[in-house]
Amino acid sequence: MRQIQIEPLTPEAFAPYGDVLEAAGDFRLINEGLCQRHHDRARLDFGEGRAGISMFRAKARALPYALTLIERHPLGSQAFVPMTEHPFLVIVSDGPEARPRALLTNGQQGINLHRGTWHGVLTPLQEPGLFAVVDMIGEGANLEEFRFAEPWMVVA
Amino acid sequence: MRQIQIEPLTPEAFAPYGDVLEAAGDFRLINEGLCQRHHDRARLDFGEGRAGISMFRAKARALPYALTLIERHPLGSQAFVPMTEHPFLVIVSDGPEARPRALLTNGQQGINLHRGTWHGVLTPLQEPGLFAVVDMIGEGANLEEFRFAEPWMVVA
Repeated sequence: MRQIQIEPLTPEAFAPYGDVLEAAGDFRLINEGLCQRHHDRARLDFGEGRAGISMFRAKARALPYALTLIERHPLGSQAFVPMTEHPFLVIVSDGPEARPRALLTNGQQGINLHRGTWHGVLTPLQEPGLFAVVDMIGEGANLEEFRFAEPWMVVA
Repeated sequence: MRQIQIEPLTPEAFAPYGDVLEAAGDFRLINEGLCQRHHDRARLDFGEGRAGISMFRAKARALPYALTLIERHPLGSQAFVPMTEHPFLVIVSDGPEARPRALLTNGQQGINLHRGTWHGVLTPLQEPGLFAVVDMIGEGANLEEFRFAEPWMVVA
């Protein structure tokens, strides 16, 4: 059985795939000093469509997790903002032939997948698996899938 | 002292001001049946600018809360997605002369303020006050403020 070891999600590890959405680094103070604004942290791309916000409720998965499929969206970026403080699993890949990577958020991070990034489907590890998703709304075939002949086992 | 009583946030109560972002109502099943997609739930408007995702970290406020100021963004909509399961306070108004309303989320709701809606600044009631904000990135004067001569006291 081929395995993937989970790594922490960091902006450096994630840079080839997208943006880590977290309240870290530079900010402006707004609201009379009571709020930090970490400005414009995602490279959004909606191509010929427009931006939309959708709500996802995904079933929690358990570890070890059998990764059987990756997908990508050729027509736009896709951001996932967790509405809980539970860490969730982010799986990305350089392509069907590459070894996928499994990154775990720290409970205060979302992600934005750049257009065309191969990734696993949304994998919360605890209920409720609630996320706001910012992606392209519009026409066109915006989903490609690749199914592995043999699963990758994602392990802690 | 003039007072405002907190009400629950519902799509009906909030309709004049914006959209409630929650995983309720119609959905499509995706990811082999393991995820509900509640599609395209916000009326986004970025005017002459573009969409961006910023991260806000706001200090928690206590009740009763003295509301001294409302503001609005004439150039675009503004969505707030909490990254915790803590209810937060949403204050909206029909304008400087009107009686503001104070709505409390149920812990699984975000909001999208329509362009030009008068609102109070972000008011989490518990730490960490972490939010992803989807609003207009671009040039122009996108903030109007109004300060009340006498505060409104927001009470539970």
